[in-house]
Amino acid sequence: MELEVIRGLLTPAETKILLLVLDGLGGLPMEPGGPTELEAAKTPNLDRLAAEGIVGLHQPVSPGITPGSGPGHIGLFGYDALRYQIGRGVLEALGVGFDLEGNDLAARGNFCTVDAAGKITDRRAGRISTETAAKLCRELQGIELPGVEMFVQPVKEHRFLFVLRGEGLTEGVADTDPGHVGDPPLPVKAETAAAEATASLVRRFVEAARGRLADHTPANMVLLRGFARRPDWPEFPDVFGLRSVAVAQYPMYRGVAKLLGMEAVEGSASLEELFDTVAGVWPGHDFAFVHVKEPDKAGEDGDFTRKVAVIEEVDRLIPRLVDLRPDVILVTGDHSTPAALRSHSWHPVPFLLWAKTVRRDEVDRFGERWCLRGGAGLCRSEALMPLALAHAGRLAKFGA
Amino acid sequence: MELEVIRGLLTPAETKILLLVLDGLGGLPMEPGGPTELEAAKTPNLDRLAAEGIVGLHQPVSPGITPGSGPGHIGLFGYDALRYQIGRGVLEALGVGFDLEGNDLAARGNFCTVDAAGKITDRRAGRISTETAAKLCRELQGIELPGVEMFVQPVKEHRFLFVLRGEGLTEGVADTDPGHVGDPPLPVKAETAAAEATASLVRRFVEAARGRLADHTPANMVLLRGFARRPDWPEFPDVFGLRSVAVAQYPMYRGVAKLLGMEAVEGSASLEELFDTVAGVWPGHDFAFVHVKEPDKAGEDGDFTRKVAVIEEVDRLIPRLVDLRPDVILVTGDHSTPAALRSHSWHPVPFLLWAKTVRRDEVDRFGERWCLRGGAGLCRSEALMPLALAHAGRLAKFGA
Repeated sequence: MELEVIRGLLTPAETKILLLVLDGLGGLPMEPGGPTELEAAKTPNLDRLAAEGIVGLHQPVSPGITPGSGPGHIGLFGYDALRYQIGRGVLEALGVGFDLEGNDLAARGNFCTVDAAGKITDRRAGRISTETAAKLCRELQGIELPGVEMFVQPVKEHRFLFVLRGEGLTEGVADTDPGHVGDPPLPVKAETAAAEATASLVRRFVEAARGRLADHTPANMVLLRGFARRPDWPEFPDVFGLRSVAVAQYPMYRGVAKLLGMEAVEGSASLEELFDTVAGVWPGHDFAFVHVKEPDKAGEDGDFTRKVAVIEEVDRLIPRLVDLRPDVILVTGDHSTPAALRSHSWHPVPFLLWAKTVRRDEVDRFGERWCLRGGAGLCRSEALMPLALAHAGRLAKFGA
Repeated sequence: MELEVIRGLLTPAETKILLLVLDGLGGLPMEPGGPTELEAAKTPNLDRLAAEGIVGLHQPVSPGITPGSGPGHIGLFGYDALRYQIGRGVLEALGVGFDLEGNDLAARGNFCTVDAAGKITDRRAGRISTETAAKLCRELQGIELPGVEMFVQPVKEHRFLFVLRGEGLTEGVADTDPGHVGDPPLPVKAETAAAEATASLVRRFVEAARGRLADHTPANMVLLRGFARRPDWPEFPDVFGLRSVAVAQYPMYRGVAKLLGMEAVEGSASLEELFDTVAGVWPGHDFAFVHVKEPDKAGEDGDFTRKVAVIEEVDRLIPRLVDLRPDVILVTGDHSTPAALRSHSWHPVPFLLWAKTVRRDEVDRFGERWCLRGGAGLCRSEALMPLALAHAGRLAKFGA
C-alpha cells in the first residue's frame, strides 16, 4: 500500500491512537509444547483488551526475515521496511542520540588493531572499554578537515560514530572495513564520480587517524562502514495526519521516530514514570508511540523468567494507559526476541487492537497461539497503521 | 497475481461459475458480543453450502481501507483495485447507465450557487430536486461545442453527468470544484499540454452554462470534477476465459461489469424475478455475476433487522441457483456495510466457495465468526476468481 494512497484518504477526526511497543515481544517456548513468554505471563489487563478487541500476528519485513530494530519499527509505523531502509551510519547516529541534520553523512566506525605491515590483526581492537574509546574519540575529534565539521562520538567498546557536516556531502563512499583480518584496511574509495570530493575528505580523516592512533595499540587504526545520509522520506505526521509523539527509554527508538518527523521525549527506565510521561504529552497529540525496551533485553539474555516478569509489570500498568481514553489501542512488539534463541527472530509478532469499531473475534487472551485464531489474522506489519487509522475513523472511502 | 499469469494458465472446460454478491454483506454486532447481520440471519441453505464447501474472509483493497462500490467489485472480479482505478466521471456514467464509448470523456457535475461576485456560496445548490436538475440539464444540453457531441444527464438532486464525445479528447483537465465555498469555481485548466484542446472545450461549456443558468438561482453555476476516460483494461471474459454475464438491479453494477467486457442484463427488484432472469441467461454463459443491492441499502440505513430479513430472503431462494447446477458457487459481498456504522467499512467480507473439489473445513455455518476459522482463511479479494477457476478445473499447472 503506497503511503500516498493513505494520505489521500485522510479525513479529519478528533480521535487518538496509542501504540505500545514491547520490544521483542514475540517469543518461543523453552521446551516443546510449553508456553511462550507472553503466554506464560499473567496479563489480565491485556487479556481484557484482547477480549474486547481483535488480535492477530504481524510479520515484519517478510516471512523468514529477522528484522533489526530499525526495520522492525519502520514497519510498525506503516512504511515498507524493504523500501525504506535506514543506512548503517544513520542507525548508529540514532542509537547514540546524535541529531543528524539534513546534509550530514554518517558512518559506523570501529577501532581496530593493525600490525607493523599495516594488516588488520583484530577488527575490534581487543574490544577496548567504552572509556578508552571515548578518550580516543576526543583525540580524533581534533582532526581538522577543510570546509566541513566533523564529529567522532563513542558508542560502546570499540564502536564509534563518525559524522561529516557541510555542503555537498554525498553517499557513495565504500566501506574501508574488509570484514576479515589479514589484509590492510581498504583504501577509501568513491563508488561514483559524484562521491569523489566526499571520499577525499574521508581519506584525509583516515590518514590523520592512523597518525594520531599510532601509539595507542591495540586501538591503532580505524575502520569505517555504512556511509549514509539522513533519508528524506514522507513524514509520519503528514502521511497519517496525526500529531505524533514518541516516548522511549532508548535513543535509538526516539531517533527512528524523529527521523520520521515525530516529536520524541525521553522515557524513564521506571515504567511508572514512563507512563506518567505519556500521560503528560497525551493532551497535545493524536498519536503516541510508547516504547518499552526491557522484554527485548531479557530475551537477548535468554532470561525467560525476567521477560515474563516485565510483561506482567507492563500489564499491571495498562489501566493507566486505558485511563487516557485512547480511541484505538495497539499493543505489540517490533519483532520477536525469544529467550530460547537469545536473539531477535523471524517469528510473527502478536498484536492486539482495541477499538469500539472492531469486529470482535472469539479470542479473550493475549498470546501467540491465541493470536493465531484472531480476527486480524496474519498480516504484514505495515497493515497495522492503516487498520488503526480506520478504527479511529480517520480514513475516507477509497473510490466511489 | 498478474492477470497475464492467469490468462496464460487457462485450460478449456465445460464448467460454470456462479458469483452471487450480496452488496455490503459484511456486518458488525449492534452491541458488543452480539451477532452480525449474517450471523443473526437464519440461513439453512447458505449454511449447507458452507458445510459442503469452504468459507473465509476476503479483504478488499488493503487492510483498513473502506472500498467504494467500484473498487469493491473490481477486486471481486480479480483485478487489483489499487492498480485498476475507475475515474470519478466514469463511475458517475456507470451509475446512471450511460454507455461510455471508447473515446468519451466523462466528469461528475454539481449544480452550485454563486453570489454576485461569482463566489461559491453553496456547492450543492441547496440540493435542488432531481426534477429541477433534469430541467436544467435539458437547458445545458442545448449548448453547442465545435466538433464534439456533448451529453448532460441528471443523476440525483444537484448531481449530473457531463460527457464529451469526439476525436482527440484527453484526460488531464483539472477539477473546477475548489472543494469549499467562499471562492469562485476554479478556471478550467489543462494539466498537460496535450489536454489544452479538451480544456478549451470544457471552458466553453462552463461559460455557456454560466450564462444559461444565470436566472436559475440557487442552481446558477456548475462545478465539474473527476474528468476521466473509459479505461482500456484487459477484459474479464478474455482474462478468465469465461463467457460472462452480469445480472444486476442497479446500473452501477451492470456498468462495472460492462466496463470489463461482460454482458449485462437488468435484474428485477424482486429477488424471485431476478433469479428467474439468471436462470434465463445461464445456458449461454460460463460465468454469471448476480448482484443484490438491498443488504447494502439496509446497512446504510442502519437497519439491522431489514438487512437480516433480506439475507434470509436470499437464502430461501438459494435452491433455485443451486438447481442451475453450477460447478462453483461463490457467495459473498463486495465490502462490509454494518448497520451499526450506517456506511461501508473496512472490515473483511465473509465468503463461501462451494465446489466438488474443495478441501472441506470444519465450518458448517455462514457468518463472519465462523468464516474466520474457514478453510480459505483471510485473503485478498483478488484471490477469489483464481480460486473459483481452479475449482472449476479451468487452470493448468504453473511451471513444469
